[in-house]
Amino acid sequence: LTGASPIPARPLRVAEDGWSLEILDQTRLPHEVVVVRLTTLDDVVEAIAVMRVRGAPLLGITAAYGLALALRADPSDHGLRRAAKALVAARPTAVNLPRAVEVVSAAVADLPSDARAAAAYAAAGALAEEEVTACRAIGDHGLRLLLELAAGRPPGQPVRVLTHCNTGWLATLEYGTALAPVYRAAEENVPVHVWVDETRPRNQGWLTAWELHARGVPHTLIPDSAAAHLLQRGEVDVVLVGTDRTTRRGDVCNKIGTYPLALAARAARVPFYAAVPSSSVDWSRRSWRRIPIEERSPAEVRRVRGRLEDGMIADVHPGRPETEVRNPAFDVTPARLVTGLLTERGVCAASAAGLEGLFPERRR
Amino acid sequence: LTGASPIPARPLRVAEDGWSLEILDQTRLPHEVVVVRLTTLDDVVEAIAVMRVRGAPLLGITAAYGLALALRADPSDHGLRRAAKALVAARPTAVNLPRAVEVVSAAVADLPSDARAAAAYAAAGALAEEEVTACRAIGDHGLRLLLELAAGRPPGQPVRVLTHCNTGWLATLEYGTALAPVYRAAEENVPVHVWVDETRPRNQGWLTAWELHARGVPHTLIPDSAAAHLLQRGEVDVVLVGTDRTTRRGDVCNKIGTYPLALAARAARVPFYAAVPSSSVDWSRRSWRRIPIEERSPAEVRRVRGRLEDGMIADVHPGRPETEVRNPAFDVTPARLVTGLLTERGVCAASAAGLEGLFPERRR
Repeated sequence: LTGASPIPARPLRVAEDGWSLEILDQTRLPHEVVVVRLTTLDDVVEAIAVMRVRGAPLLGITAAYGLALALRADPSDHGLRRAAKALVAARPTAVNLPRAVEVVSAAVADLPSDARAAAAYAAAGALAEEEVTACRAIGDHGLRLLLELAAGRPPGQPVRVLTHCNTGWLATLEYGTALAPVYRAAEENVPVHVWVDETRPRNQGWLTAWELHARGVPHTLIPDSAAAHLLQRGEVDVVLVGTDRTTRRGDVCNKIGTYPLALAARAARVPFYAAVPSSSVDWSRRSWRRIPIEERSPAEVRRVRGRLEDGMIADVHPGRPETEVRNPAFDVTPARLVTGLLTERGVCAASAAGLEGLFPERRR
Repeated sequence: LTGASPIPARPLRVAEDGWSLEILDQTRLPHEVVVVRLTTLDDVVEAIAVMRVRGAPLLGITAAYGLALALRADPSDHGLRRAAKALVAARPTAVNLPRAVEVVSAAVADLPSDARAAAAYAAAGALAEEEVTACRAIGDHGLRLLLELAAGRPPGQPVRVLTHCNTGWLATLEYGTALAPVYRAAEENVPVHVWVDETRPRNQGWLTAWELHARGVPHTLIPDSAAAHLLQRGEVDVVLVGTDRTTRRGDVCNKIGTYPLALAARAARVPFYAAVPSSSVDWSRRSWRRIPIEERSPAEVRRVRGRLEDGMIADVHPGRPETEVRNPAFDVTPARLVTGLLTERGVCAASAAGLEGLFPERRR
């Protein structure tokens, strides 16, 4: 089921049938608003792998519902293991994905098979609402940061935020992570301007520009490589990014291009914050060196999708299609470059002590 | 005069008529090899402004010939001033352009008007050959650097060079600047592999990949934002870039994205060299802060040109075409991040003392 649609309130929901999933197909954005219905485990795995849904929190929520959907078809132990494995393998880097699968699996493991699907939908729903609550809280804590920065700006001048990739409601369900403070600022009439990194090769910056435009937040898109220049020239007040996996020591794994941004922010003495819902913390991991960094298809770099003059959507090859390409999807910003982590419980230092201060139940 | 052509030996030459210019139209590369004939000052200014010719050394040479061509039509003092002004204004950042215009102007200023055009062509030709000689020398000095690095690599493993933008024969006349050592290494059978930054928004990385492919040099194209990750992971032995203007203190102004590359190289303790023919040194400038940084059209970011599946060349918009865009074309890497400058007289420290050691005639 596919068709041109009005913009839905959330990028994922359970359909009116009570079990299938409706997602906003993000591979068609910002050109077309298309809602796609997912009815099988394979549908969900494909949607995750090709990035019809994307963003660490949304990946977790989608996997949770995917598991529920799979249990409806096969609630056996074998079915549970098979679905969990397929979902976790769909993308390797965001920790939200295995964590959500684990939470839902744990919620149903001890139940008789005929009770599993319903319990899984309930667990996925609870996870989704937790994520929304976390995003709202991140927005509130981040708003305080932006208000502090606003106090240092000339009267009437906006706080100048620089961001990378897409971390808005498209990447979560509502508000977003790194964009949540921006949306909260807009709600409170705190003037803010967002520098949006294009975010090659998938161009998620164009999704962010689309989101910000829809909400009326002033923004300017830049090539990724221009960010350091703007930082050097004093045109940025704060860098806000998301994360796909943050270690318990505060190392931030995020979309490729985040690490050079952190280096440039440090060189310019501009604060660099990662918005980290606790669902994105990998509490089991001390060192970042073994975080699996997804290598995606060279085709993502070799082809650029967009709208032609005549309105059609098409892919173009900017160069020889046979050119060898490397396409790592994430990088790691060591904790020493991170000014602070913006969590649903407040802002903390990017360190084990910082995170354990806010999440004492995770102390070991 | 436009048409599909074999690849010319140089990206610019004086046509067989002895006065008009034939250039390889770099806005059509790597898709089509098209040689365009320039017959008026306006043609030359347009070719420079829209980047049919590009690369600091080639900009200088083109401007020199452009002045000669203009003097053929109007050799008066007024004509000379007018042409010089138009050429210098065509692009603001590369110092080679005003320098070449100055050299040719000086060569003809005291001559009677009927002798000016011929003298200008001669001066432009001399400048072009100087540039070729400088590039060859940069290649030889750089080859020694690569040989030192090769000695530290496991047997048979290539030296891994990372580069940004296009600095090969397309950007000069022969060899190139930062790519000259790579081509010399290939000639000497020193194994080398080149990581090629895509170089948004104009995608000059695809020109570099095209050049390297034509010469059989192994290479892999990456998104600009992946360079820091590869540096962090120990997959790069040396960074080689060009320059559009280097101050007498060794600050390197180059294609946007060079500065974050230098930060990442420093963080990874990987040497970072700029290839700087002395024609790209701005001897009059101590501080980099007032180097004019060209801001180019937002359209360059909003549109991506490439080849469609059906073989046609087209532009696509990856997002809302009305999106506000900022497009600074250059950035500055402070001397402290530069391991060394690779000039036609050898390698020196990125400092006034370093440059004056190799160019004592410039001492003040």
